[in-house]
Amino acid sequence: MPIDLSCAPETTELVEQVRTFVREVVLPVEDAHLGDIAAAGGDTVRVELQRQAQQAGVFAPHAPIEYGGHGLNMSERAPVFEEAGYSLFGPTALNIAAPDEGNVHLLAHVADPEQKQQFLEPLARGDIRSAFAMTEPAPGAGSDPAALTTRAVRADGGWRITGHKWFITGADGAGFFIIFARTSGEPGQRGGATMFLCPADAPGLRVGRHIGTLDKAMLGGHCEVFFDEVFVPDSGVLGEVDRGFQYAQVRLGPARMTHVMRWLGAARRGHDIAVGHIARRDGFGTKLGDLGMTQKMVADNEIDIAATRALLTRACWELDQGQPASDSTSIAKTFAAEAIFRIVDRSIQMCGGLGVSDDLPLARLSREVRPFRIYDGPSEVHRWAIAKRVVGAAKRAAKENQ
Amino acid sequence: MPIDLSCAPETTELVEQVRTFVREVVLPVEDAHLGDIAAAGGDTVRVELQRQAQQAGVFAPHAPIEYGGHGLNMSERAPVFEEAGYSLFGPTALNIAAPDEGNVHLLAHVADPEQKQQFLEPLARGDIRSAFAMTEPAPGAGSDPAALTTRAVRADGGWRITGHKWFITGADGAGFFIIFARTSGEPGQRGGATMFLCPADAPGLRVGRHIGTLDKAMLGGHCEVFFDEVFVPDSGVLGEVDRGFQYAQVRLGPARMTHVMRWLGAARRGHDIAVGHIARRDGFGTKLGDLGMTQKMVADNEIDIAATRALLTRACWELDQGQPASDSTSIAKTFAAEAIFRIVDRSIQMCGGLGVSDDLPLARLSREVRPFRIYDGPSEVHRWAIAKRVVGAAKRAAKENQ
Amino acid sequence: MPIDLSCAPETTELVEQVRTFVREVVLPVEDAHLGDIAAAGGDTVRVELQRQAQQAGVFAPHAPIEYGGHGLNMSERAPVFEEAGYSLFGPTALNIAAPDEGNVHLLAHVADPEQKQQFLEPLARGDIRSAFAMTEPAPGAGSDPAALTTRAVRADGGWRITGHKWFITGADGAGFFIIFARTSGEPGQRGGATMFLCPADAPGLRVGRHIGTLDKAMLGGHCEVFFDEVFVPDSGVLGEVDRGFQYAQVRLGPARMTHVMRWLGAARRGHDIAVGHIARRDGFGTKLGDLGMTQKMVADNEIDIAATRALLTRACWELDQGQPASDSTSIAKTFAAEAIFRIVDRSIQMCGGLGVSDDLPLARLSREVRPFRIYDGPSEVHRWAIAKRVVGAAKRAAKENQ
Amino acid sequence: MPIDLSCAPETTELVEQVRTFVREVVLPVEDAHLGDIAAAGGDTVRVELQRQAQQAGVFAPHAPIEYGGHGLNMSERAPVFEEAGYSLFGPTALNIAAPDEGNVHLLAHVADPEQKQQFLEPLARGDIRSAFAMTEPAPGAGSDPAALTTRAVRADGGWRITGHKWFITGADGAGFFIIFARTSGEPGQRGGATMFLCPADAPGLRVGRHIGTLDKAMLGGHCEVFFDEVFVPDSGVLGEVDRGFQYAQVRLGPARMTHVMRWLGAARRGHDIAVGHIARRDGFGTKLGDLGMTQKMVADNEIDIAATRALLTRACWELDQGQPASDSTSIAKTFAAEAIFRIVDRSIQMCGGLGVSDDLPLARLSREVRPFRIYDGPSEVHRWAIAKRVVGAAKRAAKENQ
Repeated sequence: MPIDLSCAPETTELVEQVRTFVREVVLPVEDAHLGDIAAAGGDTVRVELQRQAQQAGVFAPHAPIEYGGHGLNMSERAPVFEEAGYSLFGPTALNIAAPDEGNVHLLAHVADPEQKQQFLEPLARGDIRSAFAMTEPAPGAGSDPAALTTRAVRADGGWRITGHKWFITGADGAGFFIIFARTSGEPGQRGGATMFLCPADAPGLRVGRHIGTLDKAMLGGHCEVFFDEVFVPDSGVLGEVDRGFQYAQVRLGPARMTHVMRWLGAARRGHDIAVGHIARRDGFGTKLGDLGMTQKMVADNEIDIAATRALLTRACWELDQGQPASDSTSIAKTFAAEAIFRIVDRSIQMCGGLGVSDDLPLARLSREVRPFRIYDGPSEVHRWAIAKRVVGAAKRAAKENQ
Repeated sequence: MPIDLSCAPETTELVEQVRTFVREVVLPVEDAHLGDIAAAGGDTVRVELQRQAQQAGVFAPHAPIEYGGHGLNMSERAPVFEEAGYSLFGPTALNIAAPDEGNVHLLAHVADPEQKQQFLEPLARGDIRSAFAMTEPAPGAGSDPAALTTRAVRADGGWRITGHKWFITGADGAGFFIIFARTSGEPGQRGGATMFLCPADAPGLRVGRHIGTLDKAMLGGHCEVFFDEVFVPDSGVLGEVDRGFQYAQVRLGPARMTHVMRWLGAARRGHDIAVGHIARRDGFGTKLGDLGMTQKMVADNEIDIAATRALLTRACWELDQGQPASDSTSIAKTFAAEAIFRIVDRSIQMCGGLGVSDDLPLARLSREVRPFRIYDGPSEVHRWAIAKRVVGAAKRAAKENQ
Repeated sequence: MPIDLSCAPETTELVEQVRTFVREVVLPVEDAHLGDIAAAGGDTVRVELQRQAQQAGVFAPHAPIEYGGHGLNMSERAPVFEEAGYSLFGPTALNIAAPDEGNVHLLAHVADPEQKQQFLEPLARGDIRSAFAMTEPAPGAGSDPAALTTRAVRADGGWRITGHKWFITGADGAGFFIIFARTSGEPGQRGGATMFLCPADAPGLRVGRHIGTLDKAMLGGHCEVFFDEVFVPDSGVLGEVDRGFQYAQVRLGPARMTHVMRWLGAARRGHDIAVGHIARRDGFGTKLGDLGMTQKMVADNEIDIAATRALLTRACWELDQGQPASDSTSIAKTFAAEAIFRIVDRSIQMCGGLGVSDDLPLARLSREVRPFRIYDGPSEVHRWAIAKRVVGAAKRAAKENQ
Repeated sequence: MPIDLSCAPETTELVEQVRTFVREVVLPVEDAHLGDIAAAGGDTVRVELQRQAQQAGVFAPHAPIEYGGHGLNMSERAPVFEEAGYSLFGPTALNIAAPDEGNVHLLAHVADPEQKQQFLEPLARGDIRSAFAMTEPAPGAGSDPAALTTRAVRADGGWRITGHKWFITGADGAGFFIIFARTSGEPGQRGGATMFLCPADAPGLRVGRHIGTLDKAMLGGHCEVFFDEVFVPDSGVLGEVDRGFQYAQVRLGPARMTHVMRWLGAARRGHDIAVGHIARRDGFGTKLGDLGMTQKMVADNEIDIAATRALLTRACWELDQGQPASDSTSIAKTFAAEAIFRIVDRSIQMCGGLGVSDDLPLARLSREVRPFRIYDGPSEVHRWAIAKRVVGAAKRAAKENQ
C-alpha cells in the first residue's frame, strides 16, 4: 500500500515516554541549572540525567540494540528526537546530542568490530563522550571541506597527524576524537582525506580554548584542538585510507536531519510558551491571542513547524531507503534552520518585553538556534549545492538537445 | 511498517503516462491556442483533448471506476494531478479541472443513486460540465460562508431558490449547478444551509456576465449567476436539508489540495523554463545559471517545490485516513498558494525581459496563479482559522490549570 | 541652514494642480478606455489629454522653460510626477511618460542647438514621440550594456548603422530614435558606443512586432526595431563619438528615478482603493479594516510608500547637486521596484476576489508594475553593482593596511 | 530654496570628530571591557570616557548650550548619534545614551527653572544618571500606556506615589526618577497621568532586581522599581497635573528616533566588519565577497542602511518643524528596528562560524539590537497605530461621501 505516514505503535509509545520524561524529569533540571546552561549542566548533570533516562527506558533511541539502544531508523528518530529537543538538556539526557549521536551513527556504519568495541560501545552507553574534528580555521576546511590542511603522514605502524582544528563541538571532556586529516593530495583537492579514531589522551593532542558563541548549551563547548605529530596506529584508521570524504557523507546527511529534529523540538517549546502567554494575557481590551497580528504570527509558526516536519519526513525516508538524499537533506536543513529561527523569533515578539528577558527561556532559545543557519553548512552553501545540481542537469540536457 | 512514501507501481506508471501525454499532446494544443487561453481553448478543444486522454488511458484519474475513472485516492492523485497541471490545458484534458473535479468528489460522497446517475456519471465521463454556486457579492457569503443570503423556501414538492451569486467558476456552459442556499436561520448564523442539484436550463436561472480576472484559463469563466424563484424538486436536495455546511467541508478540504496539485505543476513548468533559460544564456562573462543570485532563486524554488509537495503529502494522507484534516489542508493551502506565486515570480525574474513577455509562458502563469492566494479562502482567513484553533486550545488549557 | 525638506510654494501649487487635473480629467478618460489600455488610449487620446494639460497649466513640468515646460529639477519633479502617475494615463497627459521624458532630459543636457531645435523642441511640446534604441536580443546589449552589437560604420558624411534592437518602448509611432551603436571596439568591451539621432522615416529603419508583455500601458509598445545600413549624417551624432556609455549615465540615473516617481503614484492609487474598500466593507462581524492582519498590510504599505519617497528624495537631491548618484539611484530603484510591487500586491489581497477582478484597477496595476523589477536594470544587476563598489573599497582598504 | 539635504559645516565637523573619537578612544575601551559589557563598563568607565569626550569637544551634542551641550536639533543629531552608536560604549561616552538623553530632551522642554537647575543641569553635564519610570508589569502600563496603575494621591504639600514598575532602564545608580503615575481616572482610561521628578534616595523608593535580557549594554540595567508611598512635593510635578500623556509624546517621538540613530551606528559597524571579512577571506576559489549570494547580502544591507537613514531624515525634519510626527516616527522606528536586525543578522551570516563567535562583536550586536523591535513600542503596536489613522480617515471620507 503506497504512502503511509502512520507511526508504529512502539514508536508512538516511545514518543509519549520521552515527552513525559522530558517534561517531568529534564525540564526541572534545566530550570535549576540556568546558570550552567553553558555546558548543558556539565557532565555531572549529564550522568545523572542519563541514568534516569535509562530507568525510564528512553535512553539511546538511535543506538544499536546490542549496545543498549532502541535501534530506531531515521524516520522513527524524527518524532522521538523532536520530543527530546523540547528541553535543551533533553538530547544529552537521551545520549542523542551532537556530536555523539552522529558519531554513533558513523561508527555503527563504518567501524570494524574492534573499533566498535573500543569506541562505539562506551559512547553508545554514555560512558564517554566524543568529538568530530573536521573544521579548521581559514584557509583550511570550513564550508568547503576540500580545503582540508591537517595532514597525516605515514609512520611506522600507523600515522602521525599534525594540524589545527576549531569549532570542535564537545572537545573538552571527550574520550576520543574522530580526526579528519589529509593522507594524500593538496588543500583544495576533493579526495585524499582519511578518518582516524584517536583517544583524547594521545600524546600531542591538545584541547585549546573554548570559542565563545551565541549558543551555550553544547556540553564540552566549541573548542580549538591542536594535533602535534599525534600518532594513530593503523588500527585507528576508520574504514579505508583516502575515503574520508565518502564517510563524511554517511555522517553529514543524517546528522543534519537529527539537528533539525532536536531544534524543531526547541522551537516548538518556544512556540508553546508564546501561545500560552497570548492566551492568558490581556491587552487593548482583549486577549493578545485574539489580535490579528498575533494570530498571524501563531499561524506562521504552525506553518513553519508543519513544513519542517514534512520535509524531514521526506528526507528521513530517503535516508532509510539507502538513498544518498543529498538534495532532500540540503533542502530540509536549509528550510528548517531558517524556519526554526523564525519560529523562536516570532515567539519572542509575541511575548513583548518578557520575550527578550530571562524570565522566559525564549531569549536563550533564540541564541541557541541562530547558529544552525551556519553550522552543518551555511544556508548559502546548501543553496549553492542545490542549484548546481539543477542547473548542471539543465546544461547537460541543453547539450544533448543541440 | 511505519512511514512509507513510495508510490504504488501502477500510480508511478500513470504519472509517467500523464507526463508523456501532457508534453506530447496537450502542450502543443496550449501553444496553438494562446489567444484562446481565456477559455482553456473552449469546449471544442476540451472535447477533443478529453477524447485523446481517454485513448491514452489517462482520463478521469479521480473518478469512480464504474464511471470510467481510475478511482485514485488523494495521495495517489497528488503526483498525477501535478503532471496534468504542467499545462494550463492539462486538467481540462484529464477532466480534473475545477470545479468539475471537486464536484465529482462531492457527488461521489454525498449523492444518492439517482443523483449519481443523472449528474455524476455524465460529469465524470466529460459529457457535461458543472458549477458550484456558493460565493455571493457583499454582504453575502464570501470568505465567511455563514453570511449566506441566497434563500430556498418550501414549495410544493420541492424548493424555490432566490439569490445572487458571483465568481461562479465554469458557470457559462455548465450542464448543472450545485447551489448553496439557506433553508433556515439568518445570514451570519452558522447552519441552515442546504445544497441543491439544479440543471442549467431550469426556469429562473440566469448566467450573467463573466467577471474579468487576472486568471483567464478557467473554462466557463467566473460568472455572475442569478436565481429567481428557481424550482428544485425534493429529489434535487443533495444529502439532507440544513446540512450544507457539513457537506461543504467534504468538498472544500480535498478541493483545496487538488488546486495545490495542479498549480504546483504549473509552477514547476515555470521553474523548468527558467532553469532551461539560465543554463543556456550567457551574461557577465558566464552562464546566468552560474551567478550566485540566480542560484539563490533556483534553490529557493526547489525548496518551495519540495515543501509544497511535502505538506501536500501529509494533508492527502490525513484525508485518505478519513480525518477532517482542517489544519493540515489549511496549512498546505496557505503555504502552497504563496510558494507557487513565489516560484513563478522568481522564474520571471530569472528570465529578465523575456520573463515578462509573451514569448515565454511565464507572464501568463503569474497571472493564473496569483488569485490562488485568494480563491479557496484567502491566506488571511486560513491563518485566522489555524491560529484560532491553537489559541483556543491554549485558553482551555489555561482555564483547566487555574 | 541644514536639511530642509519643505517644498517651494510654486511646486506645492503645481502638485495640487496636477492632483486635481488627474482626478477630474485623466482618470475618467482612463476609465473610459479600459479596452485601449494597451496603448494608453492611443495617440488620439494622448493629443487630447495633452491639450487639456496645457490648458490646465500642468504640461511638461520637466521640460526647459523655453520649450514650454516648467523647468523643474529632479527634487521638484518627484511629487509632481507621483501625482501624474496616479493614473496610468497621467504621465502621457503631462508628456512625462517614458521614454520621451528621459529623452527630453538627455537632449537638454547633450544635444547641440540644431539638434535641440529639430528634435527636442517638438518632443517637449508633444508634437512628436520618440524612442531610445539600446536593448538588443541575446547575446547583445541587455542587462550588460557592454555586450552592444549594433554597429555604426563610417560612411561619406556620416555613419551607416546596422543592428537589431528589441523591447524598444514607444517605437511604434515614434518621430525619431536615439540609437545606441558601437563605433569602435568589440562586443563585451566597455567603451566605443555612440548615440545617434535618427528620424523614424530614415531608409533602412523598420519597426517590427510589438512584444507582448505583462504591462500594456506604454504608448507605442515595446517593439523590435531593425536597422539595415541606416544612414545618419554627422549632424545626427549626439555629443561626441565613442562617448555613448557616458551619456547613457546622464539619462539612466534620472530616468530610473522618474520611473520610481510615476510608479509610486500608481502604487499609491492601488493602496487608496484598497483602504477605501476595507474601510467600508464588513466581514467577520467588523469592518475589514479593523482586522489585525488587514491593518498589518495597510501599515506595511504605508512604510513602503514612505521609504520609497525618502530614498527618492535623497537620490534626487544628489542628482540635482550634479553628483553621479549611481549608488543612491541604484538603491532607490531596487527598493522602490520591489516595494511598489508589494504595495499593489497587498492592495489586491485586501480586496479579495474583487482585487483580482477587472471591477477594480488593481489587477491591471499589478501587471503594469511587475516588469519594473526588470526594466531599467534587474534588481539583481543593481544589487551586484552596489555590492561591487562596497566590496571593492574594502579590498583596497585591506591592501593598504597590509 | 526647496529640499536641501546638505549638512551644516559645523555639524559635518562634529560628525568627523565623533567618528575619530569613537574609533580611537571608545572602541579600544569597549574591546578591553568585553566582560563588563553588561554595564557598558560601569560608572567608572563612563566617567572616564565622558571626561575624554569633553576634552575632545564631542560631549552632550544634544544638550542645551547653557549646560555644556552643543544644542543640536534632531536633524543634526542624526549623523552625530549614528557615529556615536558605532561603539556600544559611544552613546555613554557622549552622554547621549538612553534614557538620559531622552530625559534631557524632556526636561529641556517641560521643566521649570528650578527643576532644570536641580535635575537637568547635573544630568546634562554627566554628574548623575536618571531613569524614566513608566512601564509596569501586566496588567499595568506596557504597550498600552492607558493601563497605567501606579497611583499618586494628594498629600500635604505634594503627592504620595505607590506602584510597581519594571524594565526601568538605568534605574540602578540613577540619581533621580521621572515617575509616571495616575492622578485621576482608572486604569484603561486615556488621561489622568502626571509626571513626577523624584530623587533616587526618596524614602519608599526601592530599586529591585535587574531583569536579565538579551541586551546587556545598558548602564544601570533594566530593573524593577517599587514605590511605597513615596512623597513628592508639588515642586516635583513636571509640567501640569494630569497632562502626563501629552508630555510623554514630547519625549517618545524623539526618543524613538535617537534610538534609531544609535542602533543604526551599531548596525553599520556590524556591516563594516562583515564586508571587511568577505573582502579578505577566500572560499570556493574566489574572495567570498565576489560570490553572488554574499553580494546580495551586502547590497541588502546597503539598501536597509540607506532607507533607515532616509526615513530618519524625514522624521527628524518634521520634529524640528514642531510637528507631532507620530506617523513618520512610527514608520521610521518600525522599519529601522527590523532593518537594523536584518543588517546585523546578515553580517553574522557573511562571517560564518566566526560570525556567531565572540571573536567578532557580531553575535553581541545581534543580542543588543533584537529587543529594539519590542522596546519603544513593539512593531505590531506601531503598525496598528499607523493603520488606525489611515483606515480611520478612510472611514470618515466614506461617511462624508454617503
